[in-house]
Amino acid sequence: MTTEWYLDFVDTSHRPSSDELVALFRVEPAPGISMPEAVGRVASESSIGTWTKLTTMTPEKRRLMAKAFSIKKPWVKIAYPAELFEAGNMPQVLSSIAGNIFGMKAIKNLRLEDVSFPPALVESFPGPQFGISGIRKIFGVERPLTVSVPKPKVGMTSEEHAQAGYEAWSGGLDILKDDENLSSQTFNQFERRARLSFKMRDKAEKETGEKKSYLINVTAETKEMLRRARLVKSLGGEYVMVDILTTGWAAVQTLREECEQLGLAIHAHRAFHAAFTRNPKHGMSMRVVAKIARLQGVDQLHVGTVVGKLESPKEEVLALKEVLTSDKINGTAGTLPQDWRGIKQVFPVSSGGLHPGLVPQVIKLLGRDILIQIGGGIWGHPDGGRAGARALRQAIEATLDGIPLSEYAETHQELRRALETWGYIRPK
Amino acid sequence: MTTEWYLDFVDTSHRPSSDELVALFRVEPAPGISMPEAVGRVASESSIGTWTKLTTMTPEKRRLMAKAFSIKKPWVKIAYPAELFEAGNMPQVLSSIAGNIFGMKAIKNLRLEDVSFPPALVESFPGPQFGISGIRKIFGVERPLTVSVPKPKVGMTSEEHAQAGYEAWSGGLDILKDDENLSSQTFNQFERRARLSFKMRDKAEKETGEKKSYLINVTAETKEMLRRARLVKSLGGEYVMVDILTTGWAAVQTLREECEQLGLAIHAHRAFHAAFTRNPKHGMSMRVVAKIARLQGVDQLHVGTVVGKLESPKEEVLALKEVLTSDKINGTAGTLPQDWRGIKQVFPVSSGGLHPGLVPQVIKLLGRDILIQIGGGIWGHPDGGRAGARALRQAIEATLDGIPLSEYAETHQELRRALETWGYIRPK
Repeated sequence: MTTEWYLDFVDTSHRPSSDELVALFRVEPAPGISMPEAVGRVASESSIGTWTKLTTMTPEKRRLMAKAFSIKKPWVKIAYPAELFEAGNMPQVLSSIAGNIFGMKAIKNLRLEDVSFPPALVESFPGPQFGISGIRKIFGVERPLTVSVPKPKVGMTSEEHAQAGYEAWSGGLDILKDDENLSSQTFNQFERRARLSFKMRDKAEKETGEKKSYLINVTAETKEMLRRARLVKSLGGEYVMVDILTTGWAAVQTLREECEQLGLAIHAHRAFHAAFTRNPKHGMSMRVVAKIARLQGVDQLHVGTVVGKLESPKEEVLALKEVLTSDKINGTAGTLPQDWRGIKQVFPVSSGGLHPGLVPQVIKLLGRDILIQIGGGIWGHPDGGRAGARALRQAIEATLDGIPLSEYAETHQELRRALETWGYIRPK
Repeated sequence: MTTEWYLDFVDTSHRPSSDELVALFRVEPAPGISMPEAVGRVASESSIGTWTKLTTMTPEKRRLMAKAFSIKKPWVKIAYPAELFEAGNMPQVLSSIAGNIFGMKAIKNLRLEDVSFPPALVESFPGPQFGISGIRKIFGVERPLTVSVPKPKVGMTSEEHAQAGYEAWSGGLDILKDDENLSSQTFNQFERRARLSFKMRDKAEKETGEKKSYLINVTAETKEMLRRARLVKSLGGEYVMVDILTTGWAAVQTLREECEQLGLAIHAHRAFHAAFTRNPKHGMSMRVVAKIARLQGVDQLHVGTVVGKLESPKEEVLALKEVLTSDKINGTAGTLPQDWRGIKQVFPVSSGGLHPGLVPQVIKLLGRDILIQIGGGIWGHPDGGRAGARALRQAIEATLDGIPLSEYAETHQELRRALETWGYIRPK
C-alpha cells in the first residue's frame, strides 16, 4: 500500500511549467528498493507526503505534490509547484528540497546537484547589491583584484594585523582579508582590529594613490554581526566578510538587509561547505550553495583555484564561475537552466594555496574578472609581506601583458624571489 | 619543507589541559600522504597554520598551534588552545574546527565525530531555558509527551490546520507541530495559522482539562523569525519551532536570546543534517550537532526512532539521548568526555514514520523522558486524527502499565483500529 502511494509522486509524462522549481538529484536507492519507489519517496517527503495513505489527502491538495518527471539512472529531476515555497525564505526552501530526504532509509545515497529557481522565487531575493560592476567602481581598475589574509591567519595582535595590512597594501595589495576563523578573540578583538586596520588602510591609500579595502570578518550571532557591520561602516569600510555556512542562511539574509542600508558589500567565505559538497554521491553540491549565495546577495564568493591546496576540479570551478556571473544558464545534460532575472553578478574569488607562480594559470582558467587571494604565498615571501604583495602584482602585470613570469622576473626582484621560493608548485 | 612544517602540529607527547577544546576526527589521508602528514595539515588549517613556512611565525605565536596528540588509525584527537575561540560565537568555533579542513586535497575523507568543549566555552553559551524539567512543568505530566504534525504536512489551509489541531488535541494529543517545510505559504500564512490554531488550542484545553501546546515553525530570515516569535507569545504560545540547520547557528543564537525575553521554549528540527552526518567517513556527526544545539539552548531536539522511516541506528539514538540529557559524559574509546557545567537537559524527540504499534519499542529504548512524535500514524488512522491521537495515548498508557498492546486493544477501539491498519510494521 505504501509503495503504491509513493509511486503517485512519479509522473514521467509531467512537463514542468515555468513557475515550478526543478531540482536535479543523484539518487541511489537502498538495497531492495526500486528506483521509482525511491524517487517517489524523495518527491513525497520533500513536498506534501508522508509514509502512509491519509484520510485527509483531498484531490484538491494533490495539486501540491512534487512530481519526479525524469529518471535517467542515477539522475532524477523533480518538479515542485511554486506554492510550496515561501517567497524570500531560503531556510524554508531548503527545509523542503534539502531536508529530511537525505536521511531516508529507502535511500542509500542522495545528492542535490542543481536547482532551477523559478522567476517568482528568484525575484523574491535581492541578489548582490554591488556585483562585479559595483565592486569594480570601488577600485577603478579592470585587472584581477588582489586579496590577502595576513599569516599566521590567527594569532597576530590587532597592532600586528594592522601593520601587516599596511605592508601588503603598500606593496600593491588591493584588499586585506581576515581568515575565516578570526572574529573577535582576546588577542585580536574585532573593534580594536577594525580601528587600527582602517587607519592603516587610509594611510596606505594616501601613500600609494590606490584604492584599498579590508574584508573584516563579522561572523557571529546575528545582532552582534550587525553591530560589527555598523562599526565597519563608521570607520569607512566598503565590505563585511561572513562565513555564510557556519553563520547560516537566515543570518546571511539579515546581514544583506543591513548592508543595503549601510551601503556595504558582502564577501562570502564558504568554510564548512566541503562537509556536504565533497562526496559526489551524497549531500548538496557547491553549485547549489553558489546559486543560493547569489540569490541571497553576497557580492564575492570563493570558488576554488583548480591548482591550489583545496579540492576544486577544473570543471567545478568553471561551472561555479558560470553560476555566479551568467545572465542566464541554458542547462546541459548535467545541469538545469537558470534565468537570473537581472540579478547582479557575484565576483568569484580564487583562493587556497596560491602563490605568484600559479597566477598565470589562474587567470588563464578564470579570466580577469576574479579576485586572486593569496595568503601563505605573500606572507611566506622571503622578503616579507610587502615584497610578497609586489610579487603578486608583478605576476598579474606579466600575465596580462602576455610575458612569461620567468622573463618578467629578470627585471622584477620580488617576483624573482617568489619564484625562487615556490617556483610553480601546486601545494597539497 | 612543507611536510616538515605540518609535522610540527603533531605532538603525541602533548596532554591536553582542561581548558583546551579537544576534537575527535576520523581521518583518511589521500593517496601518497602519510597519516601524520594528513593529521598535521588538519591541525594546521584548523588553527593558525598555512601551507608554507612563514617569516611572521614567531615562537610566541606557536602557543596557538593545535596539536594532534593521539593517532589511532583512523581516529585522531586534536587539542586546540582555548584562545583560538571567541566565547559565545558558535559560527566562529565551527569555522575553525569544521571549516576548510573538509575540503583539503591531502585528505580523502574527514569526519568530525565529537567535540569536547572546555568549561569557559560551555559557560559562554546559555543552554536550554526550560530543559526537560521546565517543559514538564508546562504540562504537569510525567509520561512521554505526544506530538503530531497534521498531514498532509503541507497543503492544508489555516482553517483546516487549526481544525486538525483541535481534533488531535481533543483526542489526547499534547502538542501540535508544524512540519519543517511549513512556514508562511500563501495557502497557509503564518499569522492566520497562528491565530486560528491557538484559538482552537484554548478551546481544546478548556474541553479536555489538559494542557495543550503548539510548535509553530518560525523558520525564516532572522528578524522575521523574531517577529513571528513575538506574535506567538502574544497569542499565548509556549514554544517556537525552528529548523536549526537550514536557518543556521547565528540565527538560532539570536532566536534563543529573544526567547529568553519572551519566555518561550525552542523546539529544534534538524532538517538537512543527514546531508553531512550520514556518511560515517566524512562530514560532521549528529553527535556534534546535538552538542551544539544543547549549548545554544534549544529545549527539544529530534534524535531519531531506531524503528521508523529515517536512518537512525540504535547506538546513535541512545548516544544522542546521552548527549542531550547527561550532566557529564566520561568518554569512551569512541567518544570524548563532556562536562555540561550545569547546562540544562534537552528533551529528546523521537519521530519519523512512527505509529501506535511501535510505541512500546520506542519507550523501551528511550524511556519516559521523550516526546513521541507521530504524523502519518495519527492522520492515517482509519477513523481520523482524533481517533489517531486516542490510539497513541492508549498505546502509551498500555506500555507504561506493562500491558501488551494487543490485550489493551481488546478494550480500546482506537488502538485496535490502529493495530488493524499498521500492526507493528517498521516503515521504509
